Amino acid sequence: MMKKIGIVGGVGPYAGLDLNQKIFDNTITQGQDQDHLEVYLLSRSSDIGDRTTFLKNRHLPNPAAGIFRTIEKLDRIGAEVVGMPCNTAHATPIFSEVSQHMQKANLSCRFLHMIEETYRYLTEWKRIQPSLYQLGLLSTQGTYDVRIYPEFLEKDQTFSVLYPSSQGQQLAHEAVYTIKAHATPPREAQEKLQNTAEGLIQQGAQAILLGCTEIPLAFANQTEIHGVPLIDPTLILARSLIREAAPHLLKPINHSIY
Amino acid sequence: MMKKIGIVGGVGPYAGLDLNQKIFDNTITQGQDQDHLEVYLLSRSSDIGDRTTFLKNRHLPNPAAGIFRTIEKLDRIGAEVVGMPCNTAHATPIFSEVSQHMQKANLSCRFLHMIEETYRYLTEWKRIQPSLYQLGLLSTQGTYDVRIYPEFLEKDQTFSVLYPSSQGQQLAHEAVYTIKAHATPPREAQEKLQNTAEGLIQQGAQAILLGCTEIPLAFANQTEIHGVPLIDPTLILARSLIREAAPHLLKPINHSIY
Repeated sequence: MMKKIGIVGGVGPYAGLDLNQKIFDNTITQGQDQDHLEVYLLSRSSDIGDRTTFLKNRHLPNPAAGIFRTIEKLDRIGAEVVGMPCNTAHATPIFSEVSQHMQKANLSCRFLHMIEETYRYLTEWKRIQPSLYQLGLLSTQGTYDVRIYPEFLEKDQTFSVLYPSSQGQQLAHEAVYTIKAHATPPREAQEKLQNTAEGLIQQGAQAILLGCTEIPLAFANQTEIHGVPLIDPTLILARSLIREAAPHLLKPINHSIY
Repeated sequence: MMKKIGIVGGVGPYAGLDLNQKIFDNTITQGQDQDHLEVYLLSRSSDIGDRTTFLKNRHLPNPAAGIFRTIEKLDRIGAEVVGMPCNTAHATPIFSEVSQHMQKANLSCRFLHMIEETYRYLTEWKRIQPSLYQLGLLSTQGTYDVRIYPEFLEKDQTFSVLYPSSQGQQLAHEAVYTIKAHATPPREAQEKLQNTAEGLIQQGAQAILLGCTEIPLAFANQTEIHGVPLIDPTLILARSLIREAAPHLLKPINHSIY
C-alpha cells in the first residue's frame, strides 16, 4: 500500500519545488505518469514568517502556527507522511511547537524531521566509512545560531559539526537570501558558498552539509567540491519520504554517498 | 485580495512542477518568501489515466473522474482559481465531463481552460501584429487527433492551425513520451521536436505552439527557432492564474511575445 506524501512548501517556494522534483527523480517508474506517487505540495509562504527573524526575536509570532495550518490542510486531503524543506524551521523552538499543535489537533499524518533523517543517513554512511567525523556546515545565520545541526549530529559524539568563521557564516547567509530573491541562483551567490565551503575543507571537513534548502539550488548537480562530498538534506528527505510511502519504489542510490 | 491558486498536477508530474515554477517566476516580489502567492500543487498521477489512450478508446474510464477528485481536494483546502498543465486533458470529451462533475458538486473554484487562455493571449498579440495567422502545432497524437487547437484557435477564422506530416506527428508524440520517462529531456527527444518544428516553419508557420506541457521542458529557455517564436501554453496559463489571483503581482512581460 502506498502512502500519500505531503510537502510544507513555500519555505522557500523554490525549495518546495526542489524537494518535490527530487521525490519524482528518485521514484522507480516504468516511464508512465501513473507510476508516480501522490505528492501534495502546498506553498503557503505568506502564512509562514521568516524563521531566522523569529529565532533572533522570540517575541515575534512563531512561524510554527502557519506551518501547522499547512500540515492541517495536507492532513485534510489525505497526506500520510509529510516533509518540510526548510532547515531553520526544524530548530526546536519552532519544530516542537508544530508537534504540540499536531498532537492537540490529533492529526494522523507523520511529520518527518529533516535533520534527524540526515543524521540517520550519515550514520548509515559511517558504517561504510568509520573515519567519517568532521562535517562542515553551510547554512543561514539562524541555523548556525540555534545550533540545530550540532544538536542532532553531535549526539553520542558520532560527528563533529564545523562552522565557518563569522565572516564565512555571513557570506553563506547572504548567499541564501540572494538565491531566494532570484529564479536562477546568481553566480555571486554560488561563489560565496564555494569560498565558504573551501574554508571548511581547509578546517578539515570530510563532507559539506548543504544546511539550507536554497543551497542545493546553487550547486545544481554538483556532488563534491575538491573531492569532498556535498550532503544535500533535501535529497535525503525526498528519499526518506519515498521510503515511508512506498519503499519498493525507492530508486537504488546512484551516487556513492546517497 | 489575493486568491489562492490550485494546480491539477501529475499530468504529467514534471509539467505540474513546470507550471508551479512559472507561477513563482512571474510573480512580482521584493525578494522575500512571504511575497509569493499561495499555490497548491496536487500530483495525483495514479488516479488520472492516460488522456490520449482514452480519446482513442472511449470505452475506457474517462480521466475526468480523477481530475475532478483532484479539483475537489483543491477546493476543500481553499483553492479559488485552478489550472491543469495538460493539453490533451482539455479535449472536450474530458474537460466538459470535469465541468459537469464540478457543477453537480457545486464547487466554487474557477477552472481556467489553458487552450482558451492561449487563444486569448494570441488575439492580444494579433492586435499588435495583425498578420499573425498561421500557427504550427507540436503535440501528442491525442491532441492532434481530437483537434483541440483548431477547435479553439480557428473560431471566427482568427488563426489557422498547421499540422506536421503524419511522420512529423509521430516524431512529436514519441518525443513527449520520451520526455515523460526521463528526469532530464534526452537530446534525441529535443532533436525530434526541433525537426518537426522546422518542417512546420517550412509550411509557413509564423509561430510554433508547444501544445503539450512536456514540450517546453525540452526547449528550456529557448524562445524561438530560426526567428519563429515558440508559444508556451504552460507559461500563458501561469500568467493567467496570477492575473486571476492577484493582477498587481503579475510581472511585466520581458519577452516581446508574452
